[in-house]
Amino acid sequence: MAHPKFESSNLRVHCVRLEPGMEIKSSLLSYAKENNLQAPFIMTCVGSVTKATIRYAAQPTADSTVDLNEKMEICSLVGTLGAGGHLHIVLGREDGSTISGHAIGNLEVFTTAEIVVGECTDLVFNRTFDSRTGFDELDIQKRT
Amino acid sequence: MAHPKFESSNLRVHCVRLEPGMEIKSSLLSYAKENNLQAPFIMTCVGSVTKATIRYAAQPTADSTVDLNEKMEICSLVGTLGAGGHLHIVLGREDGSTISGHAIGNLEVFTTAEIVVGECTDLVFNRTFDSRTGFDELDIQKRT
Amino acid sequence: MAHPKFESSNLRVHCVRLEPGMEIKSSLLSYAKENNLQAPFIMTCVGSVTKATIRYAAQPTADSTVDLNEKMEICSLVGTLGAGGHLHIVLGREDGSTISGHAIGNLEVFTTAEIVVGECTDLVFNRTFDSRTGFDELDIQKRT
Repeated sequence: MAHPKFESSNLRVHCVRLEPGMEIKSSLLSYAKENNLQAPFIMTCVGSVTKATIRYAAQPTADSTVDLNEKMEICSLVGTLGAGGHLHIVLGREDGSTISGHAIGNLEVFTTAEIVVGECTDLVFNRTFDSRTGFDELDIQKRT
Repeated sequence: MAHPKFESSNLRVHCVRLEPGMEIKSSLLSYAKENNLQAPFIMTCVGSVTKATIRYAAQPTADSTVDLNEKMEICSLVGTLGAGGHLHIVLGREDGSTISGHAIGNLEVFTTAEIVVGECTDLVFNRTFDSRTGFDELDIQKRT
Repeated sequence: MAHPKFESSNLRVHCVRLEPGMEIKSSLLSYAKENNLQAPFIMTCVGSVTKATIRYAAQPTADSTVDLNEKMEICSLVGTLGAGGHLHIVLGREDGSTISGHAIGNLEVFTTAEIVVGECTDLVFNRTFDSRTGFDELDIQKRT
C-alpha cells in the first residue's frame, strides 16, 4: 500500500457570523473562491439551521439524499472547502437525538452560524478523479 | 440579503488538560478572560464528563434545558469563547448512542478533557443583540 | 482544586488524504513519530470507514470495546496524537443515526479521509499516569 503523503504549511484563519436565511456551504465556497483561498478547511462551526440536505452513509447512489426540514443545532461540521468542498455534519434535534452524514447543502441558517475557516497558506487543495471511489478526491499539492 | 462579512487573522493556540471535577465551560471562559484572549474558539476537545446541562434544538425558551447525570464521552465540542461563549456538544453514552445540543454548562470532567483553544490575534469577538434572533450574536471586529 | 494549567504556542499544520484500506489512527501516529511532531492534534477529519473499534462511555474495563463492520461516515474526530494519542469519534450510519465513543483503532478508510493535523511548535504532549483515572493522561510542557 502507498505511504500516506502529508504536506505541511503555515495557517491563516478567516472568521464569519452567517445571518438568518444564509446558506452555509455556498457562503463558504463563494468566500473561498472570491478571496482565492486555495487550501481552506473548517476549524469550528456552531449554529443552527432550519433545513439540510444530507446523504447518509453507504447509500447506493450519490444522489440518494434526504431533505430535512426542522430546526436543528449544528454540533459538528468537519471537512475541506477546496474545489467544491467535502463536508460532514452532526445535527442535534429537538429531542437531543442526532443525525449525521455528508452535507450536500441547503444548510439554511436559523439564528446564526459562527464559523472559523483555516487556510493552509503554503498548499493547494485540488480534486482528482479516483477510479477506486468514483469521486474526485482531495489532492494536496505544495503552492508554487 | 447582506453579504457575509469575513475577517482574517493570524492564530495562536492555547492548550490544557482539565482534571477530574473541573467544569469545562467556566474553566475556558475564565482562562480567556484572565489572559485577555479577545477572539478565542475551540479547535479540539477530547474527554469525558459526569454531567452536562444541554439545551436541545428548537426549544420554546432559552431556559428549556436538560440536566444529564451520567458518564459520557465528549465526541465533539464546537464554538467560540468570546463574550460568554457559544458552544455545542456531542456526547456519547454507554450504549454508543449520542446526545447533542447547546452546551449550557455543568460539564464536569470525569477523567480528563484535553482541549486546544485557538486565539485570532488580529480580531475581537464581541456579541451584539440581534432582534431577529433574540440573542446576543457574534460580532467580529478587527483589533485596533 | 488546582488551577488549570494552560500553555500557549504557535502552530503549523500537516494535511493528508488517506486512501482506501489505510488505517487512520496508526497512519497519523506513524506520521507524527517519523516526523518528530511533539504536540499534534486533530483539526478536522472528513471521510468514511468500513470498520471501527470503539469503546463506548462508562465501560467497566478499558478493553470493553465494540467492533463495528459497516460503511460509516466520519462526522467528527477530535483529540490529540502525542504519546499514543487520544481520539473520540462520531460515526454516521446508513439510516442517519450516529455512534460515538473512544476510537480504539481499526478505522479502515472506505473512500477517503481528508485530515488536517495541527502541531503546537512550542510544546510537547507527554502522557503521565494519573492514579485518579487509572490512565496515562495528557501532560503539556513547553518545548526546551
